[in-house]
Amino acid sequence: MAIKLSSKSEGFEEEIRALLGSKRETSEDVDHIVRDILHDVETRGDAAVLEYTNKFDRMSAKSMDELKVTEAEIEAAVAQIPAETLEALQLAHDRIRSHHQKQLPESYTYKDAIGVELGAIWTAVEAVGVYVPGGLASYPSSVLMNVVPAKVAGVERIVMVVPSPDNVLNPLVLAAAKMSGVSEIYRIGGAQAVGALAYGTETIAPVSKIVGPGNAFVSAAKRRVFGTVGIDMIAGPSEILVVADKDNNPDWVAVDLLSQAEHDPVAQSILITDSEELAQAVEEAVERQLTTLPRADVARQSWNDFGAIITVDNLDDAMVLSNRFAPEHLELCVDDPDALLPKMRNAGAVFVGRYTPEAIGDYVGGSNHVLPTARSARFSSGLSTLEFVKRTSLLRCNPENLAQIGPAAVTLAEVEGLQAHGRSVSIRLNH
Amino acid sequence: MAIKLSSKSEGFEEEIRALLGSKRETSEDVDHIVRDILHDVETRGDAAVLEYTNKFDRMSAKSMDELKVTEAEIEAAVAQIPAETLEALQLAHDRIRSHHQKQLPESYTYKDAIGVELGAIWTAVEAVGVYVPGGLASYPSSVLMNVVPAKVAGVERIVMVVPSPDNVLNPLVLAAAKMSGVSEIYRIGGAQAVGALAYGTETIAPVSKIVGPGNAFVSAAKRRVFGTVGIDMIAGPSEILVVADKDNNPDWVAVDLLSQAEHDPVAQSILITDSEELAQAVEEAVERQLTTLPRADVARQSWNDFGAIITVDNLDDAMVLSNRFAPEHLELCVDDPDALLPKMRNAGAVFVGRYTPEAIGDYVGGSNHVLPTARSARFSSGLSTLEFVKRTSLLRCNPENLAQIGPAAVTLAEVEGLQAHGRSVSIRLNH
Repeated sequence: MAIKLSSKSEGFEEEIRALLGSKRETSEDVDHIVRDILHDVETRGDAAVLEYTNKFDRMSAKSMDELKVTEAEIEAAVAQIPAETLEALQLAHDRIRSHHQKQLPESYTYKDAIGVELGAIWTAVEAVGVYVPGGLASYPSSVLMNVVPAKVAGVERIVMVVPSPDNVLNPLVLAAAKMSGVSEIYRIGGAQAVGALAYGTETIAPVSKIVGPGNAFVSAAKRRVFGTVGIDMIAGPSEILVVADKDNNPDWVAVDLLSQAEHDPVAQSILITDSEELAQAVEEAVERQLTTLPRADVARQSWNDFGAIITVDNLDDAMVLSNRFAPEHLELCVDDPDALLPKMRNAGAVFVGRYTPEAIGDYVGGSNHVLPTARSARFSSGLSTLEFVKRTSLLRCNPENLAQIGPAAVTLAEVEGLQAHGRSVSIRLNH
Repeated sequence: MAIKLSSKSEGFEEEIRALLGSKRETSEDVDHIVRDILHDVETRGDAAVLEYTNKFDRMSAKSMDELKVTEAEIEAAVAQIPAETLEALQLAHDRIRSHHQKQLPESYTYKDAIGVELGAIWTAVEAVGVYVPGGLASYPSSVLMNVVPAKVAGVERIVMVVPSPDNVLNPLVLAAAKMSGVSEIYRIGGAQAVGALAYGTETIAPVSKIVGPGNAFVSAAKRRVFGTVGIDMIAGPSEILVVADKDNNPDWVAVDLLSQAEHDPVAQSILITDSEELAQAVEEAVERQLTTLPRADVARQSWNDFGAIITVDNLDDAMVLSNRFAPEHLELCVDDPDALLPKMRNAGAVFVGRYTPEAIGDYVGGSNHVLPTARSARFSSGLSTLEFVKRTSLLRCNPENLAQIGPAAVTLAEVEGLQAHGRSVSIRLNH
């Protein structure tokens, strides 16, 4: 059973602090292994990637060529998928694409009062690597969420890596890759795949940015290659925080809480409500539903270890608390969510009203499901088209306005002891 | 003397690759020291910060209170600054502020064809720490460049840390802090300051994001606290790449190259030109100017070790090369820069035309001088107002449109084996 807290009880603040500080990361120490693998891939290229892949994924490929997924394989995979599933995937793709197109920033320049031209030129990253986990966590929805924004941004080359342990690949992952416009697919994973994307090999040209979720080895490898390439966030276990008033169907709230809990034993589900009755009813509903949930073992462990039901005096207090948690997902299951929205400060995504379960955003809502975890919504945002473009700032002076602002630059360069800086301005002032 | 390359020579591609691959980082191994300091600050708070500060900065403070800079100290510092310098600083501040206000993103929501509401809510990071180096590299311009965008973004609390070795503080740094709206200033630096900002102490409340340049200890500490807080980029040594046609004053180009070289022995200055004559003339002008430059030692070492003059057949080829270097600063010193701009793909900032020396952007241009180095302009952008805000995505369904897109979500949840996800949607479909 989850922990139950009430703002009326003594020691509430301490309990909240303990909950905020609870460590949910499984900190496997894999960094030294990853360092060696990366070094090996950087120096030996294809040969190293091939060896690690055969070893870790129990494969027997003789060359990197064999690890490249062919068009025929993709078509064969797509052919075996039921039409209803493909249609659902296409709906998700189209809605994600449509929403992410609205996120494209526009380049602009303008002249200020003295005629200095300033601006920003947005351009797409040229080549992106997308990591897709193998096995059970090989989700087609994640392929769409990572690839579509890159494609919309204008990335020319999108390289997908996905391990195929025992030579098994999820056909839906291949279908999602084809649908969303992946350029190349390799059946490789782990730190060796991250290394291949970052440094390049004889077969795989290097990319400029690597995105996508992975296990501890993948995360450690991404941290290590950061700088050589860009990376997205390092995703932690999933979270949901539901702010609910008394007028909720407790079963709806319960299943929303369980939809995060079923992800991972270290996922976290929190209900904050101003209703003691709802708190009690949801607690019972969770237990009831756990008896029929296929992934009940995982969900129960998460709920027991990290779940929480918190009652507060009013919904404003609920928002103050929610902002401290900075949850990945925030549901506002209340009568008047628009009254609470302006009080929302830190959250990866907000799901507004009783008819917007978080899972709709995981698949077909159109927004991205790659969101900041572990309270990082205090300072970061979810994946969007913006993560696949970069901004070059632009500055253009002419002799007249350089003469107006140049002397101040010379003064500041002098006091900072950077004389060549000053000279580079002053040498132009008398022309 | 810098290396000279010509696209006409055999082996040109190999030489360019070697230049691209040259390591300019001074990789001091400080990580284990930093780990211990951070752990100490996290567990012992003020006491640890005080001890490290007294030790490393040769101070004798008895409490953290003594390390907090008072309003009186700031006013005394400002009072001793010449009016001309303060005016130059104010001009820089106002121009930076004005430009960064244009970067503020706007929240929006919209309804799609079936009435699903989607959107993005931008909010400011609540508290930001700004690291300012002490000693010689204590630049007031950097204070403005890091603080003003945070202030414009709406950050409520901006905490500046700046070490004061031997109890010496640069008054201009204090003036810039006051001018730009810093909330609190502490005379602390190094990993201990980064730890205090990230974890908080009895005196210093924790922040959500830390920005600003620092030495190897500061960079290592920022890498380590990343996740607990957000960080800006890890800045490497400075770079300039000048694309120039034949009609340039070689002295202007030479001093622009030297304005980066004087920063750091591992800075890099590159000229790419289609004119053999200009290449020769700039080479001579650099040598000539080095004889009279105060920071000639630093500049000469940088120029000799990492400088390059590259001649190519035409300016289009120059842009192709420049995109491979992805320079922090790109100057287009050519007759028709607008013809080259559309070919620019990777650069932190572009300075357009002969009357826009890079140094104008360091101080008074209005754009930010914190820019991606070490080829990271391939995947990242300079500092802007955007780095101090974060986006919460918004989704709102109603019973009707949930009924339209919900079944596809249920289908996808089923194939991914996440039944609670599916249930959270289907339970709402019959209501």
